[in-house]
Amino acid sequence: MSDTLALLVSAPDRPGVLYQVAEAIFRHGGNVTYVSTVRSADPGRAEIQIEIAEAADPYQLLSELRALEVVDTVNEVPPFQAVFGKRVIVIGGGAQVGMVAQGAIAEADRHNIRGERISVDTIALVGEQQLAEAVRATARLHRAQVLVLAGALMGGEITGAVREIQRAGIIVVSLSMAGSVTEAADLVVTDPLEAGVMAVMLIADTARFSIDKVRGRRF
Amino acid sequence: MSDTLALLVSAPDRPGVLYQVAEAIFRHGGNVTYVSTVRSADPGRAEIQIEIAEAADPYQLLSELRALEVVDTVNEVPPFQAVFGKRVIVIGGGAQVGMVAQGAIAEADRHNIRGERISVDTIALVGEQQLAEAVRATARLHRAQVLVLAGALMGGEITGAVREIQRAGIIVVSLSMAGSVTEAADLVVTDPLEAGVMAVMLIADTARFSIDKVRGRRF
Repeated sequence: MSDTLALLVSAPDRPGVLYQVAEAIFRHGGNVTYVSTVRSADPGRAEIQIEIAEAADPYQLLSELRALEVVDTVNEVPPFQAVFGKRVIVIGGGAQVGMVAQGAIAEADRHNIRGERISVDTIALVGEQQLAEAVRATARLHRAQVLVLAGALMGGEITGAVREIQRAGIIVVSLSMAGSVTEAADLVVTDPLEAGVMAVMLIADTARFSIDKVRGRRF
Repeated sequence: MSDTLALLVSAPDRPGVLYQVAEAIFRHGGNVTYVSTVRSADPGRAEIQIEIAEAADPYQLLSELRALEVVDTVNEVPPFQAVFGKRVIVIGGGAQVGMVAQGAIAEADRHNIRGERISVDTIALVGEQQLAEAVRATARLHRAQVLVLAGALMGGEITGAVREIQRAGIIVVSLSMAGSVTEAADLVVTDPLEAGVMAVMLIADTARFSIDKVRGRRF
């Protein structure tokens, strides 16, 4: 499903595990794209999920990692891209934010049933600074591809944050609302359900709907 | 807001950046809890978000990282826990999955407005194996705390996956449905909206609703 090698590394909870694992991966020409510590049932134990791209010889790398003294076990797991896939991020508040999510989830269901993997991740927030911070953080989220802004008034620092994440390749859909954010958005959609549906269609390989054909439009 | 130091490290796209950064963090006694490569506008550039717990002297660590030859810039950013917070994960399909999300998002909005940070992350999926894989992966997701299963029939391998993630500390809420999954769930809720609301209340510091008081109950 992907060229990413995803590993669950289990080790005693001591500092330096990641450093030694990363060193071994580096020697194999692998590129670490994701690492996260994992909740462990055992407090004395550290588990980390590591995703690696471009490892020259995954089997050789695996056996070398297993031989590390700091490591107990290394198991292959499905990469998050294969399980949760691309992410639609929905940010906003009030009645609109849930309706956008509703539309996006119903549409994602229809695509995922045909083999896609699209998640819809929502944070309900208010306040210019909080919203701007969340918009900016979207570009740093693993697997995020499109953002939908769901509110009645957004502008100022939020609009600046929108322009920033567009430069990093995130598509931004905005509800039709007051404030300057609609001027910066790639697409403005009046109906919240429709905004969620369109956001999913924009990133689904199973849909024929490209931002290049609708950029700057209002629906 | 937290003891986590989150850094955005920008470097030329060459192997070994993470290894050298992790080595410096290790020397400072820091514990890397999260790493993710970030979309960059510039293909020759690698940006990674690194989150570090327990760094003895964050300012000293910062200046040492900035002095690394492989690194161009290191900027402090808000940790994901401060922006997107705790995660409610909703997995399932059809009409129910969107309604669970709807309830959870409306409830998260009410808590976030009082200073909480709770996200609602949804993947619409069908099929025993796909569902079991997603349930299992929930325990490996950064910041995930509670899972809601939204469907009409779940059992078999899914039930086994539920028991696994409960051992890792994830609370599992299930809709009232056919199949053995309701026997394993911590809580069974008939109405999808209510299931989403309760899932948020279970993890909100601003709510008085503890799984210990309702474990095994049906509503």
